[in-house]
Amino acid sequence: MLATVIHAPRDIRVETVPDPVLSTGGDAIVKVVASCVCGSDLWPYRGVTPTAEPHRIGHEFIGVVEAIGEDVTAIAVGDFVIAPFYVCDNTCVNCRNGVSTSCLNGGWWGSDDRVGSFADGGQGERVRVPLADGTLVVVPGPVRDDEVPGLLTLADVMGTGHHAAVSAGVSTGDSVAVVGDGAVGLCAIIAAKRLGATTIIAMSRHPERQALARRFGATHVVAERGDEGVARVQELTGGIGADRVLECVGTKESMDQAIRSARPGGMVGYVGVPNGGPELPVRPLFNRNVGVNGGVAPVRGYIEELLPDVRSGAIEPGLVFDLELPLADAAAAYAAMDERRATKVLLRP
Amino acid sequence: MLATVIHAPRDIRVETVPDPVLSTGGDAIVKVVASCVCGSDLWPYRGVTPTAEPHRIGHEFIGVVEAIGEDVTAIAVGDFVIAPFYVCDNTCVNCRNGVSTSCLNGGWWGSDDRVGSFADGGQGERVRVPLADGTLVVVPGPVRDDEVPGLLTLADVMGTGHHAAVSAGVSTGDSVAVVGDGAVGLCAIIAAKRLGATTIIAMSRHPERQALARRFGATHVVAERGDEGVARVQELTGGIGADRVLECVGTKESMDQAIRSARPGGMVGYVGVPNGGPELPVRPLFNRNVGVNGGVAPVRGYIEELLPDVRSGAIEPGLVFDLELPLADAAAAYAAMDERRATKVLLRP
Repeated sequence: MLATVIHAPRDIRVETVPDPVLSTGGDAIVKVVASCVCGSDLWPYRGVTPTAEPHRIGHEFIGVVEAIGEDVTAIAVGDFVIAPFYVCDNTCVNCRNGVSTSCLNGGWWGSDDRVGSFADGGQGERVRVPLADGTLVVVPGPVRDDEVPGLLTLADVMGTGHHAAVSAGVSTGDSVAVVGDGAVGLCAIIAAKRLGATTIIAMSRHPERQALARRFGATHVVAERGDEGVARVQELTGGIGADRVLECVGTKESMDQAIRSARPGGMVGYVGVPNGGPELPVRPLFNRNVGVNGGVAPVRGYIEELLPDVRSGAIEPGLVFDLELPLADAAAAYAAMDERRATKVLLRP
Repeated sequence: MLATVIHAPRDIRVETVPDPVLSTGGDAIVKVVASCVCGSDLWPYRGVTPTAEPHRIGHEFIGVVEAIGEDVTAIAVGDFVIAPFYVCDNTCVNCRNGVSTSCLNGGWWGSDDRVGSFADGGQGERVRVPLADGTLVVVPGPVRDDEVPGLLTLADVMGTGHHAAVSAGVSTGDSVAVVGDGAVGLCAIIAAKRLGATTIIAMSRHPERQALARRFGATHVVAERGDEGVARVQELTGGIGADRVLECVGTKESMDQAIRSARPGGMVGYVGVPNGGPELPVRPLFNRNVGVNGGVAPVRGYIEELLPDVRSGAIEPGLVFDLELPLADAAAAYAAMDERRATKVLLRP
């Protein structure tokens, strides 16, 4: 079968690799219907994180179950399933506590899966899914083709934006500022509106993304950054800053923007992967009682909650995909996202 | 009148200073019944923070109202009052949001109070209280002398320990680890128990404080620190770490201990004044979804809630005082706390 392999910075190849096989009784084989490229895939692509040796890449996919191991009970061959961007058993204490990204038996696509096998990446024709009962969520059929983009966002970006909002404690009537206008930031706007925020400030400088932010529920757009950005957020929030700020980038600059945009007693929910940093400046947090909460988003636990709203069209996270390419063109997909010609690229095998 | 003045590191003097007078219509003059020395007073005492010029010091006191300005309506001459460790109007948007330490019109004892006058410190015979209606809380009389220590803790340490627990989101059935066995840490144990925690781990190496921690509700005491301390907390919490960790010291070591003692998805509530640091290591927080929330405790807003339990004896925070001295011996009080011969010293004018 074909799958995407990263060899080195800016060297993404679609290669023929062995077909996956069931290797434990808990495995499933999923035939991929759609996968996509994540902003965090750009870190190794750009060489910000090293690629020691060629490895499979990609961690967001949806598809149809082709085979299951003898211990699998919750899914069946033929089921349409969503895979979160990681593997989890959904039964351990951390999963029960809502932190399935810290599953005691889980792992990550494209790395060792703890049974000694090299786990598949998500950008391929098929994926072997360990701990299939815990990892996969069934979408009751039939699934229309136009539902594919929306369902695919539940593998990562919609759940991650939701996690930012949940971590920040967004609730009815809140003012919320969102730092970052990538796919996650845009989904965080959806999440903030869905949880009842009434003032939603999108911090964005890109006209197309500003327009999508407004469609998703942003009541205001702030293009300024730094001191001016903070001042604009304060103007829109009675002079004090936003009740909740959703940090969806992961750089030092974006985190500083988020912390300074929160009101005294406010909370920053952050989901941007902090690549190599930043450290959080504790004194400004302490003096103003601004909290910081979040992390790698346990999206597995959010899929059931968000799925009905995606299927009904109440929320439209699938609109974050602004380019669709065949899997064979994965290298072009990475380049388009790297060069910001696309917000998020959907790949079809 | 007499009041405490810090001149330089380890140079605390009780000097004759001018009697306070009403300088605005919102002022009150309070005759101090008791004041005390705070752990944070030790920072300038130890020279960790500079003392540019001699200034009044102390920010925890209770007393009886002797005079009020013409605009004061909520308190009357003769009222027994608790002053929080700062001044606030209790009406601005930040106060209404529960963050009265960020009051738009507030200030700090011993510094400029924004009407151009030098605000009194709390360790003196009398204190001029700006914004008296917002700042002071009346204790309905009569007040027995044996109630004085408990009431005095509502000026700072009991409310601050409570803030750690509230910021961490302590609720029924939680496991809670408390880092720091000073007066605030001990009060945090009281707060955790009061909010329903069922496993309360006091991290303490001092036998007397361990005993008090147990009296206050600690179910376990962990003397180890660093990796061993983390391992012991995990042993006591099903292998994963505490649901909530209350950081009540303010050093890099104590914050690291707190962060590492929290379970995935847990929350650190912190109130230890981060003296010159530390920066928070974002990657361990992100990877495990451990949040950090807290800051300078808005104790003014907690006094009414905690007062009934203090007066009824349901909680006994006054036991944190293990030394009582006359105000004239303030220098000895600082030395006793600096040398850890006392946990907290009460001063009587």
